[in-house]
Amino acid sequence: MPAQVDLILRGGTILTLDRDLRVLEDRAIAIDGGRILDIFDPRAKQYAARQEIDTANCILMPGLINAHSHLPMTYFRGLADDLPLETWLRDYIWPLEAKLMKHEFIGQAALHGAAEMIKNGITQVQDMYFDMPAIAAACSQAGLRAIIGEAVLEGNGSAEQARPALGEKVLELRQSFAADPLLDFNLAPHSIYACSEKTLVQVAKVAAEHGILLHMHLAETRGEVRDCLKEHGLKPVHYLQKVGILELPAVYAHGVWTDPDEIGLMAANPASVAICSDSNLKLASGILPLAEYQRQGVNLCFATDGVASNNNLDLLAEIDLTAKLHKALNSDPAFLPAARAVQMATLDAAKALGVADRRGSLEPGKDADICVLSLAGLECQPVYNPYSHVVYTLGAKQVRDVVIAGEIVLRQGRLAKVDEAELVETAKSWKQRILKELG
Amino acid sequence: MPAQVDLILRGGTILTLDRDLRVLEDRAIAIDGGRILDIFDPRAKQYAARQEIDTANCILMPGLINAHSHLPMTYFRGLADDLPLETWLRDYIWPLEAKLMKHEFIGQAALHGAAEMIKNGITQVQDMYFDMPAIAAACSQAGLRAIIGEAVLEGNGSAEQARPALGEKVLELRQSFAADPLLDFNLAPHSIYACSEKTLVQVAKVAAEHGILLHMHLAETRGEVRDCLKEHGLKPVHYLQKVGILELPAVYAHGVWTDPDEIGLMAANPASVAICSDSNLKLASGILPLAEYQRQGVNLCFATDGVASNNNLDLLAEIDLTAKLHKALNSDPAFLPAARAVQMATLDAAKALGVADRRGSLEPGKDADICVLSLAGLECQPVYNPYSHVVYTLGAKQVRDVVIAGEIVLRQGRLAKVDEAELVETAKSWKQRILKELG
Repeated sequence: MPAQVDLILRGGTILTLDRDLRVLEDRAIAIDGGRILDIFDPRAKQYAARQEIDTANCILMPGLINAHSHLPMTYFRGLADDLPLETWLRDYIWPLEAKLMKHEFIGQAALHGAAEMIKNGITQVQDMYFDMPAIAAACSQAGLRAIIGEAVLEGNGSAEQARPALGEKVLELRQSFAADPLLDFNLAPHSIYACSEKTLVQVAKVAAEHGILLHMHLAETRGEVRDCLKEHGLKPVHYLQKVGILELPAVYAHGVWTDPDEIGLMAANPASVAICSDSNLKLASGILPLAEYQRQGVNLCFATDGVASNNNLDLLAEIDLTAKLHKALNSDPAFLPAARAVQMATLDAAKALGVADRRGSLEPGKDADICVLSLAGLECQPVYNPYSHVVYTLGAKQVRDVVIAGEIVLRQGRLAKVDEAELVETAKSWKQRILKELG
Repeated sequence: MPAQVDLILRGGTILTLDRDLRVLEDRAIAIDGGRILDIFDPRAKQYAARQEIDTANCILMPGLINAHSHLPMTYFRGLADDLPLETWLRDYIWPLEAKLMKHEFIGQAALHGAAEMIKNGITQVQDMYFDMPAIAAACSQAGLRAIIGEAVLEGNGSAEQARPALGEKVLELRQSFAADPLLDFNLAPHSIYACSEKTLVQVAKVAAEHGILLHMHLAETRGEVRDCLKEHGLKPVHYLQKVGILELPAVYAHGVWTDPDEIGLMAANPASVAICSDSNLKLASGILPLAEYQRQGVNLCFATDGVASNNNLDLLAEIDLTAKLHKALNSDPAFLPAARAVQMATLDAAKALGVADRRGSLEPGKDADICVLSLAGLECQPVYNPYSHVVYTLGAKQVRDVVIAGEIVLRQGRLAKVDEAELVETAKSWKQRILKELG
């Protein structure tokens, strides 16, 4: 008698991202209890499913992992583009954050962003902002897996908490959301320039004591490096070493203005870099030395950054852009081939977040976090190489189904757990409020 | 009594791209005889339409113009990525072209590409390949407006025809397709390296004599410039001046490796450049000096290039990529603001093709070539600035309706004039044939 399972995805091309990077055709994925139970030949009929999705003519891949974002900024999408960073922050973002960033705004904007990520094939995000419980509730509601970090910076009270109450806070949140397998929490010292040395030392101590992953902006702009040298007499990565952060598992967003010496130090420590190409280009921050990071063996993954500097939450677009951009910069069309780029967006991102034993590939025993890309449209044909297709041809338009922790959260492009029309109306009303605040 | 018109698009945000770059809300567009008759207040009820589309909650803009492509290469999408250019050409593209490039292949691949462009909001293309009649029939069938150029290069007979039969051929095609308002033909000397000096001189003479627009690859790679200097003792643009091409209206694809001196010469002549950012990055050709072209006043527009080096025909993605990339390269987030980029993709492209009196903006009297972008999805909300939205937020996914010459060729994302499922099946069967040819 066939074994009962929760869900079967039947057919299509499966990019396993397993150790041998196997690509499987005409197989089915059996999912039970939120995990992948088996990848099997569907003719064998050993499983009967409570629910089944026909994934013929699709590419199935591990859900995309977005390693750095700011979900509650979603309502600032395109609010003030094509402006110098200082103008954007001083005249728009900071005043709005001061006036609007209450629990309700954060929860609703985060819900909007979480739902948008799911529509774009993202199954896990690492977010950094304020009000972890509001963001957690939003991700849980949308069905998005998330590691949520409270941004620690001077002036808003979070830095005070860093000594040492913030560690307690993370542990408390882990406890209070323990029933939700989608959620985890970590520590997000904002950046070198937004945290005092004392705060960074404390955050490092707290993280080390409780084994908490760190998430931080690093070397995003040239100015940041200049200021670090001026204030601390050290390059950013050396300064991180001094305050005790570098030796700890951490994901650094941006990493644009690091030099080979710093990159060598990162490679010798448990550091990963979240590449934010769209944001870095749009804000004219610069372009990271990807080839040097690769040469020295630093673990790399992709991120959208916040929607306000992107202006979407489309990780497939980030992969495409990054792979192409660095081919040109390295004068080598063979640089960063497609399969490697897909690996960075999945398995290497899972490594960065310390969850590679549970996610980042489609293998029995791993969490059932799966992105299904449709090949039905003529713009997807013909298909010669599925990796190449994922990177260069397919986009948000082709994200058809998304499964997270075994639950179908997107089906035929429609969100399963939230009412999209309602989210659109809520966003429109917040827009009016935002415009009013700006006068 | 209201006047009868063919079609009314009612509601939404209209980016007119007119002289004052007016953005109109709550208006309607009356279309008759393939042209825009009026943009009016729909409450006035002065028109009655045989057909009407509700475009509330949409952005309406002039159809995108793709200034350089190779439609018949569509079946090579992703065939051989991440390879050095020489390997790609020598081991894949050239052998396949030699074996497969018959009338049937060209017609079907071009139809596939033309339909794909429409799905991406493109209303006019300038194409360069072999077998103009096959490409013309394909564009006509899909409903895509096209200027089709026969690639002139040594070795395939076209260069012989260039003296002077090719001019006659263009005039003949203009006559035989005169009943189809979508089609025009021009001359496409492939490149400096693929044409002899004699051929280029002849093409220039023919173009001048008959007033035919020229379409040519220029300075795509560093090697091309080096070879031109070696063989002709001149930089590419100076060489074009010598052979008589530079003084004629022409669209140059790529223009990556030109220097300020050459750019100055181009600015002093009727030269436009079609920017192919995706292709240039993916093939590692380089990045054009956009700021210098702008500074010296060269007319610029966007193009996808052929799908084989992209791997899609998505002009919205080209705009997004180019605007962001050059902000970073110029260390200025205010560089190439969104409204300017949209203008390049529409009005400036129409200027490049010599049709700005008829297309490139939404104004009474102009051709009804219109792209309607849906704002229904949550990933499109909120909207603060519609130009910024077109460039940074919206993509192929949001292209809902497309009107070309007053005819609805895409409605709710579905192609009106061709059977998409049939095109997909045809592409799949050509893929088998291609793989067989490659052994």
